[in-house]
Amino acid sequence: MGDDPLTDPAGSIGFIGLGTMGGPMAGHLLAAGHRVVVWNRSPGRMQPLLDAGAEPGASPADVAARCRVVMVCVSDTPDVTEVIAGPSGILEGSTAGSVIVDHSTISPVETRRLAGLVAAAGGVMLDAPVSGGSEGARRATLSVMLGGEPDDVAAVRPLIEAYATTITHVGPIGSGQLAKIVNQVLVVVNQLAVSEALLFAEAAGLDLERTIEAVGGGTASSWMLLNRGPQMIRRDWRPGFTIDLQQKDLRLALEAADAMGVPIPATALVYQLYRTLQTRGLGSEGNHALVKALEALAGIEIGPV
Amino acid sequence: MGDDPLTDPAGSIGFIGLGTMGGPMAGHLLAAGHRVVVWNRSPGRMQPLLDAGAEPGASPADVAARCRVVMVCVSDTPDVTEVIAGPSGILEGSTAGSVIVDHSTISPVETRRLAGLVAAAGGVMLDAPVSGGSEGARRATLSVMLGGEPDDVAAVRPLIEAYATTITHVGPIGSGQLAKIVNQVLVVVNQLAVSEALLFAEAAGLDLERTIEAVGGGTASSWMLLNRGPQMIRRDWRPGFTIDLQQKDLRLALEAADAMGVPIPATALVYQLYRTLQTRGLGSEGNHALVKALEALAGIEIGPV
Repeated sequence: MGDDPLTDPAGSIGFIGLGTMGGPMAGHLLAAGHRVVVWNRSPGRMQPLLDAGAEPGASPADVAARCRVVMVCVSDTPDVTEVIAGPSGILEGSTAGSVIVDHSTISPVETRRLAGLVAAAGGVMLDAPVSGGSEGARRATLSVMLGGEPDDVAAVRPLIEAYATTITHVGPIGSGQLAKIVNQVLVVVNQLAVSEALLFAEAAGLDLERTIEAVGGGTASSWMLLNRGPQMIRRDWRPGFTIDLQQKDLRLALEAADAMGVPIPATALVYQLYRTLQTRGLGSEGNHALVKALEALAGIEIGPV
Repeated sequence: MGDDPLTDPAGSIGFIGLGTMGGPMAGHLLAAGHRVVVWNRSPGRMQPLLDAGAEPGASPADVAARCRVVMVCVSDTPDVTEVIAGPSGILEGSTAGSVIVDHSTISPVETRRLAGLVAAAGGVMLDAPVSGGSEGARRATLSVMLGGEPDDVAAVRPLIEAYATTITHVGPIGSGQLAKIVNQVLVVVNQLAVSEALLFAEAAGLDLERTIEAVGGGTASSWMLLNRGPQMIRRDWRPGFTIDLQQKDLRLALEAADAMGVPIPATALVYQLYRTLQTRGLGSEGNHALVKALEALAGIEIGPV
């Protein structure tokens, strides 16, 4: 194990998964003065970080052997399982005292199973999904929802501050993932609200920009309305977060809600509407393209201004 | 016709409908130095305004005969029809040049019909529904969505500033009502988002206050989450806006969407859920009591902290 970033700010931190989110996050750790050992399944994604001063890891096991703290930021539940418990995974390289911080958004149930494996190996796992999208990762303004024991959360908090402005400890292991689901339920149902509202306004002949201005300052306001509303009016479907990734998160939401017997009918509706957009080949568009599902029903389109 | 508030700030303004909204609004006109002639169907509601210096009107016709500008703020479509076109209504007292400003939330179709009657009598009608609830009325921080001709809107804007901080001209007559529907679609679907999210969080064993803190600063944020979320956790169902009034507005939304062939499925779902709460005798609770419908399905309750 290398030097200790929990006691030495210049100590090595492992970072596994250098995509749209993980790449900038690892970059912010470097910029904060940490030594960072990186690994990515597609090696090409490692180069920008190596150019910025990171060291290359040979595998997740190698990263874990060299770093006490290892951040993980990959796409889906099987990816985290593979990186932690698969061949040449973190568990093959970690030693007692390892701290695994999983920034991926994955199943809370699998999170708890993996945390058990890590604990059996003498380490600690925290679930720490993020929100704020690619903009938040670039600007180091992410929100992180942490699940785990208070002492462990307190230990990693200074490291996470390199890329997050809001870091909230929501409960024991798995709670971060559950809070992230809460976040996604709000995001997509707020987006459905904006989609219904703007399509109604379009059909009614209203000036859409003026309408957002008229209703955006009061009880109808939401981040989605103020930020994605104007983008929708311009028919700019570039993603802050893609439909494909959103749909993956909603699958986690519906699985968890199903297991608990909790009704989330609007979330389920959005899941189905997004599915129609994926089938139409629109999965790589932003999640605000939800309105296209309602447009298809109505036979009209909002904007462009 | 009395002196002219459009050219003289101390001129008389008529105000018809002195309920939870109209009472404070008329009071702000008085406080701004206007002379105000008031009328209310239940005469008892006039007394606080008379005590504050308003003059009593004998009927809507009497108010209209004495004031060039008449504000109307009553509950539902038939009330506005009665006040404008009924016996002893505004049309019986108004003269050419009258300006009727309707702050009620009513049918856009009936709004246009009534505006036609007013125009035939030589006057002008503007639709000017408000949002911001009873708090906004008390604090003079309402948002007003105005429909009408630009010159007429410009003329009444200084009067409306007595009780509104956001005054947006959204289009021709009827557009104010349509924008208000857009507002209500956003309000109730955002509320559904908060209800699904908090019930999920409760079932998942999360600390609800921490969860709102964790997700409330980013893409999941909304006025409903930040303002009604904490109130819901305390199980404080006092209304900013009652289920009964919200349901009336949603009926207007569904009628208009139906006429235009616009799909607003989440809004329709909320309409039906509110209906179950009305049937259970909860119509006088705040619209954030929507969560009780989902709680009934799940057999669990959120909070109290």
